[in-house]
Amino acid sequence: MHFEIICRDKEVAARRGRFRTSHGVVETPVFMPVGTQGTVKSLTPQELEELGARIILGNTYHLYLRPGAERIARLGGLHRFMGWRGSILTDSGGFQVFSLAKIRTIDEEGVAFQSHIDGSRHVITPEKSVQIQEALGSDIAMCFDECTPYPVTYEYAKASMERTVRWARRCLEAHRREDQALFGIVQGGTFLDLRRACLEELAALDLPGYAIGSLSVGEPKEEMLAVLEEVTPALPAGKPRYLMGVGTPEDLVEGVRCGVDMFDCVMPTRNARNGMLFTSWGSIQIKNARYADDPRPVEEGCGCTTCRNFSRAYLRHLFMARELLAYRLNTIHNLHYYLGLMAEMRESLEKGAFSQWRRRFYARRQETRQED
Amino acid sequence: MHFEIICRDKEVAARRGRFRTSHGVVETPVFMPVGTQGTVKSLTPQELEELGARIILGNTYHLYLRPGAERIARLGGLHRFMGWRGSILTDSGGFQVFSLAKIRTIDEEGVAFQSHIDGSRHVITPEKSVQIQEALGSDIAMCFDECTPYPVTYEYAKASMERTVRWARRCLEAHRREDQALFGIVQGGTFLDLRRACLEELAALDLPGYAIGSLSVGEPKEEMLAVLEEVTPALPAGKPRYLMGVGTPEDLVEGVRCGVDMFDCVMPTRNARNGMLFTSWGSIQIKNARYADDPRPVEEGCGCTTCRNFSRAYLRHLFMARELLAYRLNTIHNLHYYLGLMAEMRESLEKGAFSQWRRRFYARRQETRQED
Repeated sequence: MHFEIICRDKEVAARRGRFRTSHGVVETPVFMPVGTQGTVKSLTPQELEELGARIILGNTYHLYLRPGAERIARLGGLHRFMGWRGSILTDSGGFQVFSLAKIRTIDEEGVAFQSHIDGSRHVITPEKSVQIQEALGSDIAMCFDECTPYPVTYEYAKASMERTVRWARRCLEAHRREDQALFGIVQGGTFLDLRRACLEELAALDLPGYAIGSLSVGEPKEEMLAVLEEVTPALPAGKPRYLMGVGTPEDLVEGVRCGVDMFDCVMPTRNARNGMLFTSWGSIQIKNARYADDPRPVEEGCGCTTCRNFSRAYLRHLFMARELLAYRLNTIHNLHYYLGLMAEMRESLEKGAFSQWRRRFYARRQETRQED
Repeated sequence: MHFEIICRDKEVAARRGRFRTSHGVVETPVFMPVGTQGTVKSLTPQELEELGARIILGNTYHLYLRPGAERIARLGGLHRFMGWRGSILTDSGGFQVFSLAKIRTIDEEGVAFQSHIDGSRHVITPEKSVQIQEALGSDIAMCFDECTPYPVTYEYAKASMERTVRWARRCLEAHRREDQALFGIVQGGTFLDLRRACLEELAALDLPGYAIGSLSVGEPKEEMLAVLEEVTPALPAGKPRYLMGVGTPEDLVEGVRCGVDMFDCVMPTRNARNGMLFTSWGSIQIKNARYADDPRPVEEGCGCTTCRNFSRAYLRHLFMARELLAYRLNTIHNLHYYLGLMAEMRESLEKGAFSQWRRRFYARRQETRQED
């Protein structure tokens, strides 16, 4: 995995970079749409490509349970299975095991749990997580970790963080694929000294990239920002930095400001399916009755295929009628917005005008919602 | 509405034709995908166009209830509302009122019913049906009719047919739009003398096209074929003939043989969403465990985007995981199959080789399912 920093902002920690995997070049800062079960819900790989996505996320926990990592390996790996030519990052399965499965036990060895699909019993250890991700053949794999809940005691966060570090060593030990980069995950909850300790331990492993985990899990925005501002600049400067599972458009902007290179979040895709659409002045709920006769696109001037072809009135109708096309057209718009936001930030960084861009980003949100 | 017959088969009643609406040319025999609520479920208009669809069906009953015909009219009509540049045929609402709504009364005036969506009360008369279809702005509208159930007494079928004829006269009387063709519907159940009587009465109205209604509503295949063979050749020869709501690939072939020019059916789209995929040797249930590791496309040699990009194993995975993309990829394949079948029949008719083509069509279905 080759990562280069093209330029750094002069005022803040933001940077414009680029990395290469065996599936192509990824310009950073980048947003990775979430393709949980081998598909970014409702979209084809071709649409993702047309939207400008170059790297997507796959969920190890889901794919391990269904259709099975060995099956995907037999069918040529996840890229081929789902027909995606770009890059793929797989998470470690840790987050989903803790949020979806019925946990049986968690100990030094790993996590024993029951599938949320059929109740079947499984164990995922750090070695197993690496094995699954190697079978899936993602370009970037993540070390198996425990997502620290919020709120949590200092003692729990410390013990969990220390185990995550021990698990990271085991992941690195187990990792074999040379065409796959293994990233470490900095844990420690909202305790800055734990985050620093974790970071130091993991940095010593000289992994090709580092993620910040367990943010946006319920903590107040200020605490999230405090961790971001503390941890991000302290991560190895020459390696990609990935803020996991975050977040709102504002979160992406603040993440970039702090020096984050990679993001993923279900927000644009999941909210699309719930009828929430993002625009530069905020978001709208398409089911709102005020849109029933509105011939305008979701956002005037938006270049996505949804806005170029369909009115708010039509999108509202599809959503109210629970038509499958609703989820798809909404997803296209929201991903276009998220990916466009990242492209704007990359451009502003190239021009040395990130802070200026950032002020305008917030100003647009303060303006009267004349479009709405 | 201009309809021309390009050539007739020498052995059977099949014919190759073409009609023109203000939204383009339609080559017949043609299959019309069903777009019930202003969308062919899961697909964009662009995809429909790429699949070769030139005319689709909209359901008057559904669109009248939601989002409302007047609303669609204000938004520029159904074509513009849903972004479809090709032609549209709307049914009369009759079939859905009888199959979906809770009927309050049916009398000479019309049908009073309660919406299946919210229980609200409505009355649709022949005049109202025409008014709704004119507001929707379809290229072809249908006369308001009662779909004759099966089985049914001769007396009921006769009374219902006679009312349908009187309603057709009222529809014609109420019809105003010159850019919309109003088709009549031949009823009479499986009673051939009733069908003949209905046909005679409707032919006298000199409508621009005629449909055969109430087939494939539960009657044995032989009875359907008997009606088709009796009625179709007796319909005005120079006008398009439309077999409503039918049917299987075999039904389409037999319909064409009898001289039908237009078909619609939910089968390719609805079955796609239930995981049933059509191929030249029959159909497959994609959820079948035998496909879990099958790297082949649904049908080798199929040119649809689903078969060109995705394996049976992937489609099965998407279907089992209830992923939105499953419904879409399956729909694309099935519509490609149905529209391709019609294209093959048109080509065979042009070459004067329809009967030969038909024999091969059935032979492929008899062959060992080596692909499966």
